[in-house]
Amino acid sequence: MTDAAVRSKKPATNTRTPAGGAPTAAHTADEAHEPRIDVPAVTDALLGTWAETRRTAREMIKNPAFWRVEGQSMADHRERVLGQLRLLVENDGSRRAFPEEYGGLNDNGANLAGFMELVLADPSLQIKSGVQWGLFGSAIYQLGTKPHHDAWLRDVISLDLPGAFAMTETGHGSDVAAIGTTATYDPDTEEFVIHTPFRGAWKDYLGNAALHGKAATVFAQLITGGVNYGVHCFFVPLRDDEGHFLPGVGGEDDGVKGGLNGIDNGRLHFDHVRIPRTNLLNRYGDVAPDGTYSSEIPSPGRRFFTMLGALVQGRVSLDGAATTGTALALYIALTYANQRRQFDSGAGSDEVVLLDYGKHQRRLLPRLAQVYAQFFANDELLQKFDGVFGGSADTPAEREDLETLAAALKPLSTWNALDTIQECREACGGAGFLAENRLVGLHHDLDVYVTFEGDNNVLLQLVGKRLLSDFAQQFKGADAAKLATFAARQTAGKVFHGAGLRQLGQAVADLGSPARSVELGLREEQQHELLAGRVEQMISDIAGRLRPAAKAGPAEAAAIFNANQAELIEAARAHGELLQWEAFSDGIRRTTDDGTRRVLTWLRDLFGLSLIEKHLAWYLMNGRLSTQRAATVGRYIDRLCLRLRPHAQDLVDAFGFAPEHVRAPIASGAERERQDEARAHYAALAASGAAPVSEKAAKK
Amino acid sequence: MTDAAVRSKKPATNTRTPAGGAPTAAHTADEAHEPRIDVPAVTDALLGTWAETRRTAREMIKNPAFWRVEGQSMADHRERVLGQLRLLVENDGSRRAFPEEYGGLNDNGANLAGFMELVLADPSLQIKSGVQWGLFGSAIYQLGTKPHHDAWLRDVISLDLPGAFAMTETGHGSDVAAIGTTATYDPDTEEFVIHTPFRGAWKDYLGNAALHGKAATVFAQLITGGVNYGVHCFFVPLRDDEGHFLPGVGGEDDGVKGGLNGIDNGRLHFDHVRIPRTNLLNRYGDVAPDGTYSSEIPSPGRRFFTMLGALVQGRVSLDGAATTGTALALYIALTYANQRRQFDSGAGSDEVVLLDYGKHQRRLLPRLAQVYAQFFANDELLQKFDGVFGGSADTPAEREDLETLAAALKPLSTWNALDTIQECREACGGAGFLAENRLVGLHHDLDVYVTFEGDNNVLLQLVGKRLLSDFAQQFKGADAAKLATFAARQTAGKVFHGAGLRQLGQAVADLGSPARSVELGLREEQQHELLAGRVEQMISDIAGRLRPAAKAGPAEAAAIFNANQAELIEAARAHGELLQWEAFSDGIRRTTDDGTRRVLTWLRDLFGLSLIEKHLAWYLMNGRLSTQRAATVGRYIDRLCLRLRPHAQDLVDAFGFAPEHVRAPIASGAERERQDEARAHYAALAASGAAPVSEKAAKK
Repeated sequence: MTDAAVRSKKPATNTRTPAGGAPTAAHTADEAHEPRIDVPAVTDALLGTWAETRRTAREMIKNPAFWRVEGQSMADHRERVLGQLRLLVENDGSRRAFPEEYGGLNDNGANLAGFMELVLADPSLQIKSGVQWGLFGSAIYQLGTKPHHDAWLRDVISLDLPGAFAMTETGHGSDVAAIGTTATYDPDTEEFVIHTPFRGAWKDYLGNAALHGKAATVFAQLITGGVNYGVHCFFVPLRDDEGHFLPGVGGEDDGVKGGLNGIDNGRLHFDHVRIPRTNLLNRYGDVAPDGTYSSEIPSPGRRFFTMLGALVQGRVSLDGAATTGTALALYIALTYANQRRQFDSGAGSDEVVLLDYGKHQRRLLPRLAQVYAQFFANDELLQKFDGVFGGSADTPAEREDLETLAAALKPLSTWNALDTIQECREACGGAGFLAENRLVGLHHDLDVYVTFEGDNNVLLQLVGKRLLSDFAQQFKGADAAKLATFAARQTAGKVFHGAGLRQLGQAVADLGSPARSVELGLREEQQHELLAGRVEQMISDIAGRLRPAAKAGPAEAAAIFNANQAELIEAARAHGELLQWEAFSDGIRRTTDDGTRRVLTWLRDLFGLSLIEKHLAWYLMNGRLSTQRAATVGRYIDRLCLRLRPHAQDLVDAFGFAPEHVRAPIASGAERERQDEARAHYAALAASGAAPVSEKAAKK
Repeated sequence: MTDAAVRSKKPATNTRTPAGGAPTAAHTADEAHEPRIDVPAVTDALLGTWAETRRTAREMIKNPAFWRVEGQSMADHRERVLGQLRLLVENDGSRRAFPEEYGGLNDNGANLAGFMELVLADPSLQIKSGVQWGLFGSAIYQLGTKPHHDAWLRDVISLDLPGAFAMTETGHGSDVAAIGTTATYDPDTEEFVIHTPFRGAWKDYLGNAALHGKAATVFAQLITGGVNYGVHCFFVPLRDDEGHFLPGVGGEDDGVKGGLNGIDNGRLHFDHVRIPRTNLLNRYGDVAPDGTYSSEIPSPGRRFFTMLGALVQGRVSLDGAATTGTALALYIALTYANQRRQFDSGAGSDEVVLLDYGKHQRRLLPRLAQVYAQFFANDELLQKFDGVFGGSADTPAEREDLETLAAALKPLSTWNALDTIQECREACGGAGFLAENRLVGLHHDLDVYVTFEGDNNVLLQLVGKRLLSDFAQQFKGADAAKLATFAARQTAGKVFHGAGLRQLGQAVADLGSPARSVELGLREEQQHELLAGRVEQMISDIAGRLRPAAKAGPAEAAAIFNANQAELIEAARAHGELLQWEAFSDGIRRTTDDGTRRVLTWLRDLFGLSLIEKHLAWYLMNGRLSTQRAATVGRYIDRLCLRLRPHAQDLVDAFGFAPEHVRAPIASGAERERQDEARAHYAALAASGAAPVSEKAAKK
C-alpha cells in the first residue's frame, strides 16, 4: 500500500494488509474482485494488423529445428541457422516481400510482421533472414530494375543465391556518403571496376560475408568520366560454387561477436574487380554504354537519401523484433516473479511472492507498460510501411514520414529491449544468468540492434533535425509581426501550463480525496499535454539557440550545433515517446470490453506517468509542474503498480506465447512446483511432530 | 563550446572555432595550453595502498597463458581456467590471505588488491580464484578452527584440494537463513547427516561444483537434540580422486551461462551423507560428542550475521574488480573515440574526431569521473577490510562499518560496470560488438556481479536499514523536548538550504560573469552539502513514514515497510554515492601537483554535478535547488566535459594498463593508422590530379 493510501485511510483497491496468512496482495484479478482483461482480445490487439501472419510464423517456429541450441560452437550455430533459412524457404517464409512474377506474394506489411516473430526462435535466424531477404534481396528489388529482378530474385527467394549487403566499411558506418570503395566505369569494356583503395574501405560486419555469400550488393562511389556521382549499389559476385573467393575478391571472418553468432559476419575487399555495366542497380541512377550518367533525381543529396530510404524496412523490422524480444523477457521474469517466494514477510505467514515487493513491481511493471506502447506503435509503423511499399500511400511526404517514424521508434524500442531484458535477468537472480532461461542470450543477441541499421544516436539526431525543419517551416516568409505573435504565444504558453495545472488542482481539491485529485490532474489529457508540450518547447528552445548559427561562419555554426547536439537527441527521444504514448492511447480507444479498457488505461497511465517521472526535473525547471504536483507523480505510479499487480500475469499471457516460444524452465511452472514441494515438506514435518524446534523456542 | 560560453562572449578555455583546418577542439593538454596531469603520479594514486601488489599481479598476467581466448568452447575454457589457477599457485598468487604457518603471507588487503587485477586477464579466472581461495578457503579459515586449518589449508592454497562454496540453493539465494539443507547430529556415531530434503534445497550456481570440486563447505541448518540452531557451515567431501561423486552425493552441471563460462558452476544434493562431527566449522558454534550445542555468541541472529560477515571479502573484491573492468572499458572506448573520425564537421576540414562531439563527451566523460571516484572509494574499503581482517582494527563496530561500506559500494560499482561497459560498447559501434575488442565479453562476464555475493537491491536495502537504525539511535531515550528541537532543526535545515544557495548566488552575481557564478555556487562545499543533505533528508523522511509501523500489527508493519522499500533503496544508493564522492575529494586533497589537482578537481566536479543532475527532480521538489540554479547544472556539466576533453587520454592512460592488459585492436592505434592511410590516399589522389570531381562541381 502506498504512503498516500495509508494516510488517506481509505481502503485501497488491493490491500496489502489481510487479516491472516493469505497472500499479502491480490495475485489475480479474481482475488482483487476486478474484471479480468479479455486475454485473447488483447492478444489480437497486440498482434495488430497482420495478426494472422504472425500466428502462422509462431506456429511454424514451434518446430524445434528453428530453436537456438545454447552453447553451440560458432561454426555449428552458423550451419544450423543456414539450415533454418532453407527450412524457412520450404515454409514459404521468404516470399512475402517479393513480386508475384518471381514467386513472391507482394505483401509488405505481412512480410515484416512474419519476420519479426523469428526473434522468438533465435535472433540469429531473424537477422540472417533480414540480411538475405531484407537487405541483399531488397537492394536488388528496390534499387534494381527488371533485368536484375529477372536475373536474381528467384534465386534470392529460394536461397540458391545467398548474398551479403556490403554497405558499411571499417572506416565508415553511419556516414555512408563517405565510404571509400569506388566503382569506376570503363567505357572501353563497358564494365565497372570495383576497388578498395585502403584498409579503412574494407567492407565490414557483413552477414553472409564470412562464409555463405555467393554475391553481394556493394555500395561504392560511382565514378564515370572523371566525375564522382556519389554512392550507388552494384551486384558483385563473390564466390564460386565451391565457396572460394573469385579473383580480386578477398575477405576475413569477423570472428566471435557479442551475440548473433549464428551469422557469419565478415569483411570484404576488392582489387579492381570488373563487373558488367548492367550490374549497376540502376533504378535511381544509370550509366549509358558511353559512360554518360543519368538519373531521374537531379539532386545528388536527394538521390542518395532516396536510395537509402528504399531500405528502411530493416529499421521497421528491428523495432518489431525488439518489441517481441522484450515481451518474451517480461513474460519470463513476471511469470517467475509471480511464483518465486523469498523472505518471510515478518507477518508470520508464507514467504513473500517476489511480485508483492514494492521494489519488484517498480522494476518490472513500468517496463511492461512500455512494451505495450511499443506493440501499438510498431503496428502503426508497419501500416505506414505497407502503405508506402505496397503503393497505396506512396508519396514523397509519406516516405519521409515513414523514415522519420522508423528513425524515432527503432532507437527507443531497441534500447528499451536491452534495459528491460537486463532488468528481467537481474530480477531472476542466478537463474536469470543461466543460458537455459534465455534472458542472457536475448541480451547478447539484441545488443547490436542499438547500433546497426542506423546507430540509435545518429537516428535520433536525424529525427531532431526533421523536427527542427518542421518547426522552421512555420516561419517561412514570416515577418516581424508574426514572429512577435509567436514569441508572445510561447510566453503565454508557459504561463498557461503553470496556471492551468494549478487551477485544475484547486478544482478537484473539492472532491476531498487527495488520491483522486492526483489522478484527475494527471489523466490522459494532461499526460498528453505534458508529453507533447515538452517536445514542442525543447525544439523551440533549441531552434532559438541555433539561430545565431545561421549568420555564423561554418566552423562556428558547427560549434553551435555541437553544443546543442545532446539536447536535440533528447528532444527526438521525447518525440518518440510521445508517438508511443499516442499509439497506446489510440489502441485503447479501439478496445470494446470495459474491463480490458480499464486495465489497459491503468497500464497506459503507468507508461505516461513513468515518462513524466523520468523527465520530472525538466517539467519542474520549465514551470510545467508545480513541486507539489510533481511530488504526487511517484506516489501515483506506486498506486498504479499496486492496481496492476493482480493483472500482471494476464497482461504477459496476452503476448500469446506458447511454451515452444518461451522455453525457459523458470517460467514453466517448475518454480511453483518446487515451492509447493518445499512447503508440503515442512507441513508434513510439522504434522509428524518430528520437526526440530527453533533455538529461540528451545530457550524459553 | 557550450551555449553559456557562446553567450558570455568570453574566450572559453578550449575553443571549438579555430580559424582553419585545425582540430575542432584541443585534443591534448598541450594543445589546450594547460598543464598535463602527472600521469604516473595519478596511476600511483589510483592503484592505492597496495599499488605494489597490484603491479606485481599486472606483471604476472602479461603472460598470455592467463588471457581469455575468445570463442573457446565452455569445456576448453573451463580447463584453461583451471590451468591458470595452477599457474597462479606457482606464482605465489594464492598465499596472501592465509596464515604463515600454512605457507600463507597473512596480508589481507594485498590479497584482495592482487586478485582484483585478474579481471584484466579473464574475469572467469578472477571469480574461480575467488571461489577457491576467497570463499571455499576462507570459509575453512574464517569459520573453522585450528584442526580444520591443519587438515586442509595447505591443500587449499596449493589447489590440491579444489572446493565449492555451497551456500545458495535453488530455492533460496538472498535469504540464506531459510535454506533447506539439514545437518542433523547423530550422537550414536558422532556424525552429522547432511541431507537435501526437497528439490528447492539443492545447492545451486556453485563454482567448482560441476567438475573440479573435491569437497565443499556446505551451509546447512544445524539440528541437534531436536533443536535447529540455524545455519552453520560443514566441510563435506564430494568426489574421489577420479572425479566421481562419493556415495550419497549427486549433482548437475548448470551448463552455459551468460558469462564466466570458464567456471564449472553446478548443483549439488546430498542423500543422508554422513560426515564426522569435527567437520563442523566450529569457530562460532560447536556440538559436543553428546550433542550439546554451544556458542560464544548467544543470539542466534547475531551469530548468523557474524558468520556471514566473515565472508565479506567477496564483496570488497567485486567492488574492486568491477572498477578495474570498467576502467578497461573506458580506456578502450576513449582511446578509440580520440582516434576515430566520422562525418564532416560542415566546416570544410577533416572529419570530426568522435570525442569532439558534444554528445560523445556527455556519454563517456561523466562515466570516467565515476570510475575515478570508485578507485578511491575501493581503496578506503580495502583499508578498512585490512584493518578488520589483519586485526589492527578488529572491533564489532569496525566490522559492522566494513560490512555496511561493502554493501553500499559493491552495488554501485557493479551496476556502473554494466552501464559503462555497455555505453562504451555502443560508443564503438560495430567494432565494439566484436569479441576481439573485449567490451562484450566484459559485459557478459560482469553481468552476474550485480546479483551474486549479495543481490544489489538486497544489499542496498541492508544499507538503508542500517542508516535508519543510525538515525533512530539519535532519538534513543529522547524526550518530547528533544524531538521537538530536532523537528525544528529539520525545518530550519530546509530553509537554510534554499536560502543559503540563493544568498550565495547573489553574492557572486557581482563578479559579472554568469559562468563563474555558476561554478562558485556548485563547488566542492555545495556539492557535499547537496549530496549529504539528500541522504539525511531521505532517511529522515522514510523514518517518519515508517513511524506508524512501530504501533501496527506485523502484517500492516510489513505493508508500510514495503511501500517505502524502493525509496529506502534509493536512499542507500545516495549514501553510497556520497561515500564515493568523499573518497574522490579526499584523494584530491592528497595530490601535491598543481596541474594534476586542477584537472582531478574538474573531474570530481563532473562526478558531483552528474550525481546532482541525476537527482535534479528531487533537489527541486525538496527546495534545495532553485529552478534557476538547477538549470545551470546541465550547462556546467557541458563546460566541464569541454575542459576535460583534452585530458581524456591522459586520464585513461593513468589507469596504467599495458598493451597486454588491453588487447583490443581498436585501442591499439590501428584505427589512427587506418585514418591516416585513408587521408594520405585522398591527398595523394588530389595531388596527382586524377581525383574525380564531385557531381556538384561538374555541373557548374
